[in-house]
Amino acid sequence: MTGIERLSLNQKTVNRCTTAEAVDGCVRAGIPAIGLWREPVHEIGVRRAATLVRDAGLRVSSLCRGGFFTVEEGPHRRAALDDNRRALDEAAELGAPCLVLVVGGLPEGSRDLPAARERVVEALAELAPYAAERGVRLALEPMHPVYCADRGVVSTLGQAVTAAERFPAAQVGVVVDTFHVWWDPELFPQIARAGTRIASFQVSDWITPLPADVLLGRGMMGDGHVEFAPLRAAVDAAGYHGDIEVEIFNADVWARDPNEVLDTMVARYRATVCG
Amino acid sequence: MTGIERLSLNQKTVNRCTTAEAVDGCVRAGIPAIGLWREPVHEIGVRRAATLVRDAGLRVSSLCRGGFFTVEEGPHRRAALDDNRRALDEAAELGAPCLVLVVGGLPEGSRDLPAARERVVEALAELAPYAAERGVRLALEPMHPVYCADRGVVSTLGQAVTAAERFPAAQVGVVVDTFHVWWDPELFPQIARAGTRIASFQVSDWITPLPADVLLGRGMMGDGHVEFAPLRAAVDAAGYHGDIEVEIFNADVWARDPNEVLDTMVARYRATVCG
Repeated sequence: MTGIERLSLNQKTVNRCTTAEAVDGCVRAGIPAIGLWREPVHEIGVRRAATLVRDAGLRVSSLCRGGFFTVEEGPHRRAALDDNRRALDEAAELGAPCLVLVVGGLPEGSRDLPAARERVVEALAELAPYAAERGVRLALEPMHPVYCADRGVVSTLGQAVTAAERFPAAQVGVVVDTFHVWWDPELFPQIARAGTRIASFQVSDWITPLPADVLLGRGMMGDGHVEFAPLRAAVDAAGYHGDIEVEIFNADVWARDPNEVLDTMVARYRATVCG
Repeated sequence: MTGIERLSLNQKTVNRCTTAEAVDGCVRAGIPAIGLWREPVHEIGVRRAATLVRDAGLRVSSLCRGGFFTVEEGPHRRAALDDNRRALDEAAELGAPCLVLVVGGLPEGSRDLPAARERVVEALAELAPYAAERGVRLALEPMHPVYCADRGVVSTLGQAVTAAERFPAAQVGVVVDTFHVWWDPELFPQIARAGTRIASFQVSDWITPLPADVLLGRGMMGDGHVEFAPLRAAVDAAGYHGDIEVEIFNADVWARDPNEVLDTMVARYRATVCG
Protein backbone atom coordinates (compact mmCIF):
# COMPACT_ATOMS: atom_id res chain seq x y z
CA MET A 1 0.00 0.00 0.00
CA THR A 2 1.14 3.48 -0.92
CA GLY A 3 1.05 5.93 1.96
CA ILE A 4 1.60 9.62 2.44
CA GLU A 5 5.34 9.17 1.75
CA ARG A 6 4.75 9.81 -1.97
CA LEU A 7 2.25 12.65 -1.58
CA SER A 8 3.13 16.06 -3.00
CA LEU A 9 1.25 19.33 -2.74
CA ASN A 10 1.13 21.11 -6.07
CA GLN A 11 1.13 24.66 -4.80
CA LYS A 12 -1.68 25.63 -7.16
CA THR A 13 -3.99 23.69 -4.83
CA VAL A 14 -3.49 26.40 -2.19
CA ASN A 15 -3.46 29.21 -4.70
CA ARG A 16 -3.81 32.03 -2.15
CA CYS A 17 -0.70 30.96 -0.23
CA THR A 18 2.78 32.29 -0.76
CA THR A 19 5.48 29.73 -1.39
CA ALA A 20 6.59 30.07 2.22
CA GLU A 21 3.06 29.43 3.47
CA ALA A 22 2.68 26.41 1.17
CA VAL A 23 5.97 25.00 2.44
CA ASP A 24 4.90 25.53 6.06
CA GLY A 25 1.57 23.87 5.31
CA CYS A 26 3.32 20.79 3.94
CA VAL A 27 5.52 20.52 7.02
CA ARG A 28 2.53 20.90 9.34
CA ALA A 29 0.48 18.28 7.45
CA GLY A 30 3.37 15.83 7.06
CA ILE A 31 3.42 16.12 3.26
CA PRO A 32 6.97 15.32 2.13
CA ALA A 33 7.05 17.00 -1.31
CA ILE A 34 5.87 20.07 -3.16
CA GLY A 35 5.20 20.89 -6.82
CA LEU A 36 6.20 24.49 -7.48
CA TRP A 37 4.88 27.09 -9.93
CA ARG A 38 7.09 29.70 -11.49
CA GLU A 39 4.95 32.74 -10.70
CA PRO A 40 4.81 32.39 -6.89
CA VAL A 41 8.46 31.28 -6.89
CA HIS A 42 9.44 34.44 -8.77
CA GLU A 43 7.75 36.53 -6.09
CA ILE A 44 10.45 35.57 -3.61
CA GLY A 45 13.17 34.65 -6.09
CA VAL A 46 14.32 31.22 -7.20
CA ARG A 47 17.28 31.05 -4.81
CA ARG A 48 15.20 31.92 -1.78
CA ALA A 49 12.50 29.44 -2.78
CA ALA A 50 15.09 26.69 -3.24
CA THR A 51 16.50 27.41 0.23
CA LEU A 52 13.05 27.49 1.84
CA VAL A 53 12.08 24.13 0.42
CA ARG A 54 15.43 22.52 1.19
CA ASP A 55 15.53 23.84 4.75
CA ALA A 56 12.03 22.49 5.34
CA GLY A 57 13.22 19.04 4.25
CA LEU A 58 10.79 18.82 1.35
CA ARG A 59 11.42 17.27 -2.04
CA VAL A 60 10.45 19.27 -5.13
CA SER A 61 8.34 17.00 -7.32
CA SER A 62 8.05 19.26 -10.37
CA LEU A 63 8.14 22.80 -11.64
CA CYS A 64 5.08 24.08 -13.50
CA ARG A 65 5.32 25.12 -16.17
CA GLY A 66 6.94 25.49 -19.53
CA GLY A 67 5.45 25.07 -22.95
CA PHE A 68 3.21 27.41 -24.96
CA PHE A 69 5.36 26.87 -28.02
CA THR A 70 2.89 26.03 -30.79
CA VAL A 71 3.21 29.39 -32.53
CA GLU A 72 4.85 29.64 -35.96
CA GLU A 73 8.58 30.45 -36.27
CA GLY A 74 9.36 34.08 -35.51
CA PRO A 75 10.05 36.36 -32.56
CA HIS A 76 7.12 35.03 -30.50
CA ARG A 77 8.37 31.48 -30.87
CA ARG A 78 11.94 32.48 -30.05
CA ALA A 79 10.74 34.30 -26.93
CA ALA A 80 8.70 31.25 -25.88
CA LEU A 81 11.67 28.92 -26.29
CA ASP A 82 13.96 31.32 -24.40
CA ASP A 83 11.45 31.38 -21.60
CA ASN A 84 11.44 27.60 -21.51
CA ARG A 85 15.23 27.64 -21.18
CA ARG A 86 14.90 29.99 -18.21
CA ALA A 87 12.30 27.65 -16.74
CA LEU A 88 14.75 24.75 -17.08
CA ASP A 89 17.43 26.82 -15.33
CA GLU A 90 14.97 27.48 -12.52
CA ALA A 91 13.95 23.84 -12.28
CA ALA A 92 17.62 22.86 -11.92
CA GLU A 93 18.22 25.44 -9.20
CA LEU A 94 15.08 24.32 -7.35
CA GLY A 95 16.05 20.66 -7.57
CA ALA A 96 12.93 19.80 -9.56
CA PRO A 97 13.35 16.57 -11.49
CA CYS A 98 11.07 17.74 -14.28
CA LEU A 99 9.53 20.76 -15.96
CA VAL A 100 5.84 20.23 -16.75
CA LEU A 101 4.95 21.38 -20.28
CA VAL A 102 1.55 22.76 -21.22
CA VAL A 103 2.21 22.95 -24.92
CA GLY A 104 -0.27 25.59 -26.03
CA GLY A 105 -3.30 25.58 -28.30
CA LEU A 106 -3.84 26.57 -31.91
CA PRO A 107 -2.04 29.81 -32.73
CA GLU A 108 -4.35 32.83 -33.07
CA GLY A 109 -6.36 32.54 -36.28
CA SER A 110 -5.00 29.12 -37.22
CA ARG A 111 -7.02 25.95 -37.75
CA ASP A 112 -4.04 23.81 -38.68
CA LEU A 113 -3.99 21.34 -35.81
CA PRO A 114 -1.47 18.90 -37.35
CA ALA A 115 1.01 21.76 -37.87
CA ALA A 116 0.62 22.97 -34.28
CA ARG A 117 1.24 19.44 -33.08
CA GLU A 118 4.34 19.12 -35.23
CA ARG A 119 5.73 22.33 -33.74
CA VAL A 120 5.49 20.73 -30.30
CA VAL A 121 7.93 18.04 -31.43
CA GLU A 122 10.20 20.68 -32.95
CA ALA A 123 10.24 22.56 -29.66
CA LEU A 124 11.10 19.39 -27.75
CA ALA A 125 13.98 18.79 -30.17
CA GLU A 126 15.31 22.26 -29.48
CA LEU A 127 14.91 22.08 -25.72
CA ALA A 128 15.88 18.47 -24.97
CA PRO A 129 19.69 18.92 -25.12
CA TYR A 130 19.42 22.03 -22.93
CA ALA A 131 17.27 20.12 -20.44
CA ALA A 132 19.77 17.26 -20.42
CA GLU A 133 22.63 19.64 -19.58
CA ARG A 134 20.71 20.85 -16.57
CA GLY A 135 19.62 17.42 -15.44
CA VAL A 136 15.94 18.31 -15.75
CA ARG A 137 13.43 16.19 -17.64
CA LEU A 138 10.87 17.75 -19.95
CA ALA A 139 7.47 16.39 -18.91
CA LEU A 140 4.99 16.57 -21.75
CA GLU A 141 1.46 16.85 -20.40
CA PRO A 142 -1.47 15.57 -22.42
CA MET A 143 -4.40 17.86 -21.68
CA HIS A 144 -8.09 17.09 -21.72
CA PRO A 145 -9.48 17.58 -25.25
CA VAL A 146 -11.68 20.39 -23.93
CA TYR A 147 -8.47 22.48 -23.97
CA CYS A 148 -7.25 21.42 -27.42
CA ALA A 149 -8.09 24.69 -29.17
CA ASP A 150 -6.79 27.16 -26.66
CA ARG A 151 -4.39 25.49 -24.25
CA GLY A 152 -2.88 22.19 -25.23
CA VAL A 153 -2.88 20.40 -28.59
CA VAL A 154 -1.44 17.25 -27.04
CA SER A 155 -4.70 15.53 -26.20
CA THR A 156 -3.99 11.92 -25.26
CA LEU A 157 -1.34 10.01 -23.37
CA GLY A 158 -0.69 7.92 -26.47
CA GLN A 159 0.03 11.04 -28.50
CA ALA A 160 2.36 12.33 -25.78
CA VAL A 161 4.27 9.05 -25.58
CA THR A 162 4.66 8.94 -29.35
CA ALA A 163 6.13 12.44 -29.29
CA ALA A 164 8.34 11.71 -26.28
CA GLU A 165 9.70 8.51 -27.82
CA ARG A 166 11.58 10.53 -30.41
CA PHE A 167 13.94 11.55 -27.60
CA PRO A 168 15.98 9.80 -24.91
CA ALA A 169 13.77 8.79 -21.98
CA ALA A 170 15.95 10.74 -19.56
CA GLN A 171 15.29 13.95 -21.52
CA VAL A 172 11.59 13.78 -22.38
CA GLY A 173 8.91 12.11 -20.28
CA VAL A 174 5.15 12.44 -19.97
CA VAL A 175 2.71 13.53 -17.29
CA VAL A 176 -0.23 11.39 -16.27
CA ASP A 177 -2.80 13.78 -14.82
CA THR A 178 -6.02 12.02 -13.91
CA PHE A 179 -8.18 15.06 -14.67
CA HIS A 180 -6.88 15.20 -18.22
CA VAL A 181 -6.79 11.52 -19.13
CA TRP A 182 -9.34 9.62 -17.03
CA TRP A 183 -11.88 9.34 -19.88
CA ASP A 184 -9.48 7.78 -22.41
CA PRO A 185 -10.52 4.30 -23.55
CA GLU A 186 -6.85 3.61 -24.34
CA LEU A 187 -5.59 4.87 -20.98
CA PHE A 188 -4.50 1.64 -19.31
CA PRO A 189 -2.58 0.24 -22.30
CA GLN A 190 -1.00 3.65 -22.85
CA ILE A 191 0.12 3.91 -19.21
CA ALA A 192 1.77 0.50 -19.62
CA ARG A 193 3.35 1.66 -22.88
CA ALA A 194 4.58 4.89 -21.25
CA GLY A 195 6.43 2.85 -18.65
CA THR A 196 9.36 4.75 -17.25
CA ARG A 197 8.57 7.65 -19.57
CA ILE A 198 6.16 8.71 -16.84
CA ALA A 199 7.85 11.73 -15.31
CA SER A 200 4.99 12.99 -13.15
CA PHE A 201 1.72 11.66 -11.79
CA GLN A 202 -0.86 14.29 -10.84
CA VAL A 203 -4.26 13.66 -9.33
CA SER A 204 -7.50 15.62 -9.12
CA ASP A 205 -11.09 14.69 -9.83
CA TRP A 206 -13.46 15.34 -12.73
CA ILE A 207 -16.55 17.02 -11.33
CA THR A 208 -19.92 17.78 -12.89
CA PRO A 209 -21.37 20.12 -13.73
CA LEU A 210 -18.26 21.83 -14.99
CA PRO A 211 -18.04 25.40 -13.68
CA ALA A 212 -18.39 28.28 -16.14
CA ASP A 213 -14.61 28.61 -16.24
CA VAL A 214 -13.48 25.16 -17.35
CA LEU A 215 -9.97 25.91 -16.14
CA LEU A 216 -11.34 25.73 -12.61
CA GLY A 217 -13.19 22.46 -13.13
CA ARG A 218 -10.95 20.21 -11.05
CA GLY A 219 -12.26 18.67 -7.89
CA MET A 220 -10.81 17.22 -4.71
CA MET A 221 -10.38 13.46 -5.06
CA GLY A 222 -13.65 11.79 -4.11
CA ASP A 223 -15.84 14.71 -5.16
CA GLY A 224 -16.16 13.56 -8.75
CA HIS A 225 -16.21 10.66 -11.16
CA VAL A 226 -12.64 9.36 -11.25
CA GLU A 227 -11.69 5.97 -9.80
CA PHE A 228 -8.17 6.69 -8.60
CA ALA A 229 -6.84 3.45 -7.14
CA PRO A 230 -6.74 1.47 -10.42
CA LEU A 231 -4.99 4.40 -12.11
CA ARG A 232 -2.41 4.63 -9.34
CA ALA A 233 -1.87 0.87 -9.52
CA ALA A 234 -1.39 1.06 -13.30
CA VAL A 235 1.12 3.90 -12.98
CA ASP A 236 2.98 1.95 -10.29
CA ALA A 237 3.00 -1.18 -12.44
CA ALA A 238 4.39 0.83 -15.34
CA GLY A 239 7.43 1.61 -13.23
CA TYR A 240 6.72 5.07 -11.84
CA HIS A 241 7.58 5.25 -8.17
CA GLY A 242 7.95 9.01 -7.77
CA ASP A 243 5.82 11.59 -6.05
CA ILE A 244 2.08 11.86 -6.57
CA GLU A 245 1.03 15.48 -6.86
CA VAL A 246 -2.37 16.79 -5.96
CA GLU A 247 -3.11 19.69 -8.30
CA ILE A 248 -6.54 21.29 -7.96
CA PHE A 249 -7.76 24.38 -9.78
CA ASN A 250 -11.09 25.14 -8.15
CA ALA A 251 -12.54 28.41 -6.90
CA ASP A 252 -14.29 26.76 -3.94
CA VAL A 253 -11.12 24.96 -2.84
CA TRP A 254 -9.15 28.19 -3.20
CA ALA A 255 -11.67 30.07 -1.05
CA ARG A 256 -11.28 27.67 1.88
CA ASP A 257 -8.75 27.80 4.71
CA PRO A 258 -5.54 26.35 3.25
CA ASN A 259 -4.77 24.22 6.30
CA GLU A 260 -8.21 22.69 6.10
CA VAL A 261 -7.62 22.02 2.38
CA LEU A 262 -4.37 20.23 3.18
CA ASP A 263 -6.00 18.08 5.85
CA THR A 264 -8.80 17.14 3.48
CA MET A 265 -6.28 16.44 0.77
CA VAL A 266 -4.29 14.05 2.96
CA ALA A 267 -7.42 12.21 4.06
CA ARG A 268 -8.84 11.94 0.54
CA TYR A 269 -5.49 10.89 -0.85
CA ARG A 270 -5.34 8.02 1.61
CA ALA A 271 -8.95 7.00 0.90
CA THR A 272 -8.99 7.25 -2.89
CA VAL A 273 -5.46 7.10 -4.31
CA CYS A 274 -3.83 4.72 -1.84
CA GLY A 275 -7.04 2.75 -1.20
CA MET B 1 -16.84 19.30 -55.21
CA THR B 2 -19.70 18.60 -52.84
CA GLY B 3 -22.58 21.04 -53.12
CA ILE B 4 -25.78 21.71 -51.26
CA GLU B 5 -27.25 18.44 -52.57
CA ARG B 6 -25.91 16.59 -49.49
CA LEU B 7 -26.79 19.26 -46.94
CA SER B 8 -29.22 18.39 -44.16
CA LEU B 9 -30.69 20.63 -41.47
CA ASN B 10 -30.63 18.93 -38.11
CA GLN B 11 -33.74 20.47 -36.65
CA LYS B 12 -31.98 21.22 -33.36
CA THR B 13 -30.18 24.02 -35.22
CA VAL B 14 -33.50 25.91 -35.40
CA ASN B 15 -34.60 24.86 -31.96
CA ARG B 16 -37.48 27.35 -31.67
CA CYS B 17 -39.17 26.08 -34.85
CA THR B 18 -41.86 23.46 -35.01
CA THR B 19 -41.20 20.54 -37.32
CA ALA B 20 -43.50 22.12 -39.91
CA GLU B 21 -41.56 25.39 -39.75
CA ALA B 22 -38.23 23.57 -40.04
CA VAL B 23 -39.51 21.67 -43.08
CA ASP B 24 -40.74 24.91 -44.67
CA GLY B 25 -37.39 26.53 -43.95
CA CYS B 26 -35.55 23.72 -45.72
CA VAL B 27 -37.76 24.03 -48.77
CA ARG B 28 -37.31 27.82 -48.88
CA ALA B 29 -33.51 27.56 -48.52
CA GLY B 30 -33.14 24.70 -50.97
CA ILE B 31 -31.89 22.25 -48.33
CA PRO B 32 -32.82 18.74 -49.49
CA ALA B 33 -32.74 16.81 -46.20
CA ILE B 34 -33.63 17.11 -42.55
CA GLY B 35 -32.43 15.40 -39.37
CA LEU B 36 -35.35 14.99 -36.99
CA TRP B 37 -35.58 14.90 -33.21
CA ARG B 38 -38.09 12.80 -31.38
CA GLU B 39 -39.46 15.52 -29.08
CA PRO B 40 -40.64 18.01 -31.75
CA VAL B 41 -41.83 15.10 -33.90
CA HIS B 42 -43.96 13.82 -31.00
CA GLU B 43 -45.60 17.22 -30.74
CA ILE B 44 -47.37 16.64 -34.06
CA GLY B 45 -47.23 12.85 -34.11
CA VAL B 46 -44.89 10.59 -36.05
CA ARG B 47 -47.33 9.92 -38.88
CA ARG B 48 -48.06 13.60 -39.49
CA ALA B 49 -44.32 14.42 -39.37
CA ALA B 50 -43.55 11.67 -41.87
CA THR B 51 -46.22 13.01 -44.23
CA LEU B 52 -45.01 16.60 -43.86
CA VAL B 53 -41.43 15.70 -44.73
CA ARG B 54 -42.41 13.41 -47.60
CA ASP B 55 -44.84 15.90 -49.11
CA ALA B 56 -42.14 18.57 -48.97
CA GLY B 57 -39.84 16.31 -50.97
CA LEU B 58 -37.20 16.14 -48.24
CA ARG B 59 -35.06 13.18 -47.25
CA VAL B 60 -34.78 12.31 -43.57
CA SER B 61 -31.07 11.97 -42.79
CA SER B 62 -31.39 10.69 -39.22
CA LEU B 63 -33.55 10.52 -36.13
CA CYS B 64 -32.08 11.84 -32.90
CA ARG B 65 -31.88 10.14 -30.56
CA GLY B 66 -31.76 6.86 -28.79
CA GLY B 67 -29.29 5.64 -26.21
CA PHE B 68 -28.95 6.46 -22.50
CA PHE B 69 -28.53 2.81 -21.71
CA THR B 70 -25.46 2.66 -19.45
CA VAL B 71 -27.44 1.97 -16.27
CA GLU B 72 -27.19 -1.40 -14.52
CA GLU B 73 -29.71 -4.16 -15.25
CA GLY B 74 -33.13 -3.50 -13.73
CA PRO B 75 -36.34 -1.63 -14.44
CA HIS B 76 -34.54 1.59 -15.52
CA ARG B 77 -32.47 -0.30 -18.04
CA ARG B 78 -35.51 -2.18 -19.34
CA ALA B 79 -37.41 1.09 -19.74
CA ALA B 80 -34.47 2.64 -21.60
CA LEU B 81 -34.23 -0.28 -24.00
CA ASP B 82 -37.99 -0.26 -24.59
CA ASP B 83 -37.77 3.43 -25.37
CA ASN B 84 -35.01 2.70 -27.87
CA ARG B 85 -37.27 0.14 -29.57
CA ARG B 86 -39.98 2.80 -29.86
CA ALA B 87 -37.41 5.17 -31.31
CA LEU B 88 -36.49 2.55 -33.91
CA ASP B 89 -40.19 2.15 -34.79
CA GLU B 90 -40.44 5.90 -35.23
CA ALA B 91 -37.27 6.06 -37.34
CA ALA B 92 -38.71 3.39 -39.64
CA GLU B 93 -42.00 5.24 -40.00
CA LEU B 94 -40.19 8.51 -40.69
CA GLY B 95 -37.94 6.91 -43.30
CA ALA B 96 -34.80 7.74 -41.31
CA PRO B 97 -31.88 5.50 -42.30
CA CYS B 98 -30.39 5.63 -38.82
CA LEU B 99 -31.10 6.29 -35.17
CA VAL B 100 -28.37 8.38 -33.53
CA LEU B 101 -27.33 6.98 -30.15
CA VAL B 102 -26.11 9.15 -27.30
CA VAL B 103 -25.16 6.31 -25.02
CA GLY B 104 -25.29 7.96 -21.60
CA GLY B 105 -22.71 8.70 -18.92
CA LEU B 106 -21.72 6.98 -15.72
CA PRO B 107 -24.76 5.78 -13.79
CA GLU B 108 -25.57 7.87 -10.72
CA GLY B 109 -22.99 7.22 -8.00
CA SER B 110 -20.85 4.90 -10.14
CA ARG B 111 -17.20 5.41 -11.04
CA ASP B 112 -16.92 2.17 -13.00
CA LEU B 113 -16.26 3.48 -16.50
CA PRO B 114 -15.25 0.14 -18.05
CA ALA B 115 -18.51 -1.44 -16.84
CA ALA B 116 -20.61 1.43 -18.25
CA ARG B 117 -18.82 1.02 -21.58
CA GLU B 118 -19.46 -2.72 -21.59
CA ARG B 119 -23.18 -2.11 -21.04
CA VAL B 120 -23.22 -0.03 -24.23
CA VAL B 121 -22.14 -3.11 -26.19
CA GLU B 122 -24.74 -5.22 -24.38
CA ALA B 123 -27.45 -2.72 -25.33
CA LEU B 124 -26.34 -2.78 -28.96
CA ALA B 125 -26.53 -6.57 -28.91
CA GLU B 126 -30.09 -6.41 -27.64
CA LEU B 127 -31.22 -3.70 -30.06
CA ALA B 128 -29.39 -4.68 -33.26
CA PRO B 129 -31.78 -7.47 -34.38
CA TYR B 130 -34.77 -5.22 -33.71
CA ALA B 131 -33.16 -2.43 -35.71
CA ALA B 132 -32.44 -4.83 -38.56
CA GLU B 133 -36.10 -5.91 -38.70
CA ARG B 134 -37.12 -2.28 -39.13
CA GLY B 135 -34.43 -1.47 -41.67
CA VAL B 136 -32.93 1.20 -39.42
CA ARG B 137 -29.25 1.39 -38.56
CA LEU B 138 -28.05 2.09 -35.03
CA ALA B 139 -25.59 5.00 -35.26
CA LEU B 140 -23.23 5.01 -32.29
CA GLU B 141 -22.03 8.54 -31.60
CA PRO B 142 -18.68 9.12 -29.95
CA MET B 143 -19.04 12.20 -27.80
CA HIS B 144 -16.42 14.75 -26.82
CA PRO B 145 -14.61 13.60 -23.64
CA VAL B 146 -16.00 16.64 -21.83
CA TYR B 147 -19.28 14.67 -21.72
CA CYS B 148 -17.82 11.34 -20.62
CA ALA B 149 -19.07 11.49 -17.03
CA ASP B 150 -22.60 12.68 -17.60
CA ARG B 151 -23.63 12.12 -21.20
CA GLY B 152 -21.66 9.68 -23.29
CA VAL B 153 -19.03 7.15 -22.24
CA VAL B 154 -18.12 6.44 -25.86
CA SER B 155 -15.38 9.03 -26.25
CA THR B 156 -13.49 8.38 -29.46
CA LEU B 157 -14.29 7.27 -32.98
CA GLY B 158 -11.89 4.35 -32.56
CA GLN B 159 -13.78 3.15 -29.51
CA ALA B 160 -17.09 3.47 -31.37
CA VAL B 161 -15.81 1.52 -34.37
CA THR B 162 -14.45 -1.23 -32.12
CA ALA B 163 -17.88 -1.55 -30.49
CA ALA B 164 -19.74 -1.39 -33.81
CA GLU B 165 -17.54 -4.03 -35.41
CA ARG B 166 -19.03 -6.68 -33.14
CA PHE B 167 -22.20 -6.38 -35.26
CA PRO B 168 -23.09 -6.51 -38.94
CA ALA B 169 -22.27 -3.18 -40.63
CA ALA B 170 -25.87 -2.83 -41.81
CA GLN B 171 -27.09 -2.95 -38.21
CA VAL B 172 -24.58 -0.82 -36.30
CA GLY B 173 -22.70 2.17 -37.69
CA VAL B 174 -21.00 5.20 -36.19
CA VAL B 175 -21.51 8.94 -36.28
CA VAL B 176 -18.72 11.32 -37.17
CA ASP B 177 -19.62 14.64 -35.55
CA THR B 178 -16.90 17.24 -36.02
CA PHE B 179 -17.65 18.96 -32.70
CA HIS B 180 -17.09 15.74 -30.81
CA VAL B 181 -14.06 14.32 -32.63
CA TRP B 182 -12.09 17.18 -34.23
CA TRP B 183 -9.37 17.14 -31.54
CA ASP B 184 -8.54 13.41 -31.83
CA PRO B 185 -4.95 12.73 -32.94
CA GLU B 186 -6.16 9.38 -34.31
CA LEU B 187 -9.10 10.87 -36.18
CA PHE B 188 -7.99 10.49 -39.79
CA PRO B 189 -6.84 6.86 -39.51
CA GLN B 190 -10.00 6.05 -37.56
CA ILE B 191 -12.24 7.63 -40.21
CA ALA B 192 -10.49 5.45 -42.79
CA ARG B 193 -10.92 2.43 -40.54
CA ALA B 194 -14.61 3.23 -40.01
CA GLY B 195 -15.16 3.15 -43.76
CA THR B 196 -18.74 2.29 -44.60
CA ARG B 197 -19.52 1.95 -40.89
CA ILE B 198 -20.04 5.70 -41.04
CA ALA B 199 -23.79 6.08 -40.76
CA SER B 200 -24.00 9.83 -40.23
CA PHE B 201 -21.76 12.85 -40.68
CA GLN B 202 -22.62 15.90 -38.60
CA VAL B 203 -20.89 19.25 -38.64
CA SER B 204 -20.63 22.16 -36.23
CA ASP B 205 -17.69 24.16 -34.95
CA TRP B 206 -15.71 24.15 -31.70
CA ILE B 207 -15.80 27.67 -30.31
CA THR B 208 -13.88 29.30 -27.48
CA PRO B 209 -14.47 30.32 -24.85
CA LEU B 210 -16.94 27.54 -24.14
CA PRO B 211 -20.20 28.96 -22.79
CA ALA B 212 -21.16 28.22 -19.18
CA ASP B 213 -23.47 25.45 -20.39
CA VAL B 214 -21.11 23.18 -22.35
CA LEU B 215 -24.08 21.53 -24.03
CA LEU B 216 -24.59 24.79 -25.93
CA GLY B 217 -20.95 25.16 -26.97
CA ARG B 218 -21.36 24.39 -30.65
CA GLY B 219 -20.74 27.08 -33.20
CA MET B 220 -21.71 27.78 -36.79
CA MET B 221 -19.06 26.47 -39.15
CA GLY B 222 -16.41 29.13 -39.56
CA ASP B 223 -16.93 30.68 -36.12
CA GLY B 224 -14.50 28.34 -34.40
CA HIS B 225 -11.37 26.23 -34.68
CA VAL B 226 -12.36 23.28 -36.86
CA GLU B 227 -10.95 22.83 -40.37
CA PHE B 228 -13.89 21.15 -42.09
CA ALA B 229 -12.82 20.45 -45.66
CA PRO B 230 -10.12 17.85 -44.83
CA LEU B 231 -12.58 16.07 -42.53
CA ARG B 232 -15.26 16.02 -45.21
CA ALA B 233 -12.72 14.73 -47.73
CA ALA B 234 -11.64 11.98 -45.32
CA VAL B 235 -15.24 10.92 -44.68
CA ASP B 236 -15.89 10.89 -48.44
CA ALA B 237 -12.75 8.85 -49.05
CA ALA B 238 -13.86 6.35 -46.40
CA GLY B 239 -16.94 5.66 -48.49
CA TYR B 240 -19.64 7.78 -46.88
CA HIS B 241 -21.70 9.56 -49.51
CA GLY B 242 -24.82 10.32 -47.48
CA ASP B 243 -26.21 13.53 -46.10
CA ILE B 244 -24.15 16.01 -44.12
CA GLU B 245 -26.11 17.33 -41.18
CA VAL B 246 -25.56 20.68 -39.58
CA GLU B 247 -26.36 20.31 -35.90
CA ILE B 248 -25.79 23.37 -33.72
CA PHE B 249 -26.69 23.72 -30.06
CA ASN B 250 -26.04 27.38 -29.32
CA ALA B 251 -28.14 29.92 -27.45
CA ASP B 252 -27.13 32.79 -29.77
CA VAL B 253 -27.98 30.81 -32.89
CA TRP B 254 -31.31 29.78 -31.37
CA ALA B 255 -32.13 33.41 -30.58
CA ARG B 256 -31.73 34.53 -34.17
CA ASP B 257 -34.34 34.55 -36.94
CA PRO B 258 -34.46 30.94 -38.18
CA ASN B 259 -34.52 31.89 -41.87
CA GLU B 260 -31.41 33.97 -41.37
CA VAL B 261 -29.80 31.00 -39.60
CA LEU B 262 -30.58 28.76 -42.56
CA ASP B 263 -29.15 31.24 -45.05
CA THR B 264 -25.97 31.58 -43.00
CA MET B 265 -25.79 27.83 -42.66
CA VAL B 266 -25.98 27.28 -46.42
CA ALA B 267 -23.34 29.92 -47.09
CA ARG B 268 -20.99 28.64 -44.40
CA TYR B 269 -21.52 25.06 -45.48
CA ARG B 270 -20.45 25.97 -49.02
CA ALA B 271 -17.45 27.93 -47.78
CA THR B 272 -16.12 25.56 -45.13
CA VAL B 273 -17.39 22.03 -45.68
CA CYS B 274 -17.50 21.94 -49.48
CA GLY B 275 -14.55 24.30 -49.93
